[in-house]
Amino acid sequence: MPEVYPPLRPPARLLMGPGPSMVSPRVYEALAKPIVGHLDPYLFEVVEEVRSLLQLVFGTSNPYTIAISGTGSSGMETAVANFVEPGDKVAVFYAGYFSDRIAEMAQRHGGNVVRFEKPWGETFEDGEARELILRERPRVVAYVQAETSTGAFQKGKAICDAAHEVGALVIADCVTSLGGMPVEVDKTGIDIAYSCSQKGLGCPPGMAPITVSPRALEKLNARKTPVPVWYMDLKLLDGYYNGPRRYHHTSSATLWYGLREALALVAEEGLEERFARHLRNHRAFVAGIEAMGMRMLVAEGSRLWTLNTPRVPEGVEEPKVRKRLLEEYGIEIAGGFGPLAGKIFRIGVMGYSSTRENVFTVLDALAAVLQAEGYTPAADGKAAAERVLAATA
Amino acid sequence: MPEVYPPLRPPARLLMGPGPSMVSPRVYEALAKPIVGHLDPYLFEVVEEVRSLLQLVFGTSNPYTIAISGTGSSGMETAVANFVEPGDKVAVFYAGYFSDRIAEMAQRHGGNVVRFEKPWGETFEDGEARELILRERPRVVAYVQAETSTGAFQKGKAICDAAHEVGALVIADCVTSLGGMPVEVDKTGIDIAYSCSQKGLGCPPGMAPITVSPRALEKLNARKTPVPVWYMDLKLLDGYYNGPRRYHHTSSATLWYGLREALALVAEEGLEERFARHLRNHRAFVAGIEAMGMRMLVAEGSRLWTLNTPRVPEGVEEPKVRKRLLEEYGIEIAGGFGPLAGKIFRIGVMGYSSTRENVFTVLDALAAVLQAEGYTPAADGKAAAERVLAATA
Repeated sequence: MPEVYPPLRPPARLLMGPGPSMVSPRVYEALAKPIVGHLDPYLFEVVEEVRSLLQLVFGTSNPYTIAISGTGSSGMETAVANFVEPGDKVAVFYAGYFSDRIAEMAQRHGGNVVRFEKPWGETFEDGEARELILRERPRVVAYVQAETSTGAFQKGKAICDAAHEVGALVIADCVTSLGGMPVEVDKTGIDIAYSCSQKGLGCPPGMAPITVSPRALEKLNARKTPVPVWYMDLKLLDGYYNGPRRYHHTSSATLWYGLREALALVAEEGLEERFARHLRNHRAFVAGIEAMGMRMLVAEGSRLWTLNTPRVPEGVEEPKVRKRLLEEYGIEIAGGFGPLAGKIFRIGVMGYSSTRENVFTVLDALAAVLQAEGYTPAADGKAAAERVLAATA
Repeated sequence: MPEVYPPLRPPARLLMGPGPSMVSPRVYEALAKPIVGHLDPYLFEVVEEVRSLLQLVFGTSNPYTIAISGTGSSGMETAVANFVEPGDKVAVFYAGYFSDRIAEMAQRHGGNVVRFEKPWGETFEDGEARELILRERPRVVAYVQAETSTGAFQKGKAICDAAHEVGALVIADCVTSLGGMPVEVDKTGIDIAYSCSQKGLGCPPGMAPITVSPRALEKLNARKTPVPVWYMDLKLLDGYYNGPRRYHHTSSATLWYGLREALALVAEEGLEERFARHLRNHRAFVAGIEAMGMRMLVAEGSRLWTLNTPRVPEGVEEPKVRKRLLEEYGIEIAGGFGPLAGKIFRIGVMGYSSTRENVFTVLDALAAVLQAEGYTPAADGKAAAERVLAATA
């Protein structure tokens, strides 16, 4: 064991994968501010500010809007653990990995899971979503608004309407949409939405924003069995964050500071501006990809604005491209997995990473690496992206 | 909603409660370093460094030594969720709040809990601990090495020996001991030990170090039911951190950086030096308290070196003292709760907070506030503390 540990020197990465994305210097500054205790009046001031900023970005007036002390997956587990009771029928719209994870968690918590399946990357139409729910009459419906494994956006209004018709609650995974495109919890009718800090919000990982509708809280209060996970028990967290401020766990001032600063950046930019920026850079990126002769996995109209999933060209080995981008260009992107392993790239253009410069940088680097790996782009991707940006400027 | 959010200006607190404690500037610097992705080779370098440093501070050679992405309570829940199966008899040594929390979690996870009870602040002797375990023959034994609610240290060797004699695993809560006094996982025979980042280690909250013995892993692999909490499933975390580095959740580079830096400070100081510093400052603090005419809750020999629990003098209202210390002196301490509500102060002198200056500052401020609240200290606490430090220098 050496006696002196040199300071950490992390490599300078351009984070363009499905998250974490880049972090603003302002957020880094906030992370280094002096901490206060978990029951300090100042901490609760920050929590209240985060609450109202999260309401803005989630598109909700739910008073129960906080963040779980864990990553996005802890938000998912919180939703499932609190709202799926043993024996409950849980209908999951399955068209990618994260719906599968919800199903897995629901099973572990004793849920009786019914899957509505589509190939990865596809989405459900209003009519079929409605029909499936009315047929199965579940107690809980879960869908992934922003499927991080495929890049698809699933509309939710028809799902929520049908679910409420049969008395079911709706859980929506908004991990890759929050902060980068409209989530619209209230307008859509979502009962429980959760997300993460490190994608559209541009904060490091470690917090899972979550919002819970009054209807869902009523059901929670009527639960017959205790929530199996003490750490994620929303009633206990209510007593800590919302009510008497009774000690539950030692939530991290550092993580609250970072989240507040990231959300402040969202509010200062303005939601509409921010979403427009994401849409613009997404369109430019896709134009670049298509100009290079590649095709997108997800149909136009169902694509996330935050995360792009071009198909890997025939004959190209995806892991090699990814490795070269990281090692030769310092750019992190991700590949597909499960049925999409080797078949897609997952390239995030979100949060603080969503800039025209980053769109150009990634398109250029990708073109160079693809060329080196034997695929010759049909045309200049960056030039195509530039044209789109010029037209929307 | 204001359009511009001023930078956060947290109040300057001297954190002398049961945690979080003060954070070194070096750790704050580490928290502000550029993040990398959760599958970046660099992140795993940091994880490996943290692993070996945690082995050092836990006193273990367990290869399965990592940190959970959550606070200390998530470490507790990870231990319980993985090692208590429905129907298992779980024996909990109960003499404070955190053993109660373990019992509560064990019940939620279907365990059949037997409590061995003592008044808060007391500890179990070797003989009686052994007898209770042999009588009940549980499958899992849990005890709190460092009881944060009372300031008591529970010895573990006799507990572990008896537990192993009846084939039980031992879970030990080391939340308030790790980094401030010897935990000695291997020497004691603890199978699963967990802790937090924000006390003896002097890092902000957000990570829960945990170590698991090979014997415990064998039992985990023989589990008949899946671990109910996906987020805390140690087998899945094994695939992420220890084995094939398969994606599980998006662990936070920021939190790993902070934990590494805090542990590097421990290693640079040297374990023996660090423990000696804690013991010295603890003794000085206690001498100061006793000189002032106050009494400690916990018997000498069973006291934590990290967290001191003087009894509140007759006639003094504890919440008022705490409030004045915070508002007039910027010092955070805590009070008792449960059966000890209003009866004790909980004053941490640990991690980066464990300095002679802080001992003096707190004793002086406490004397002044007690005086203002109607209690006249018998003698000068600071002078008594100084004498102890001079004698041990």
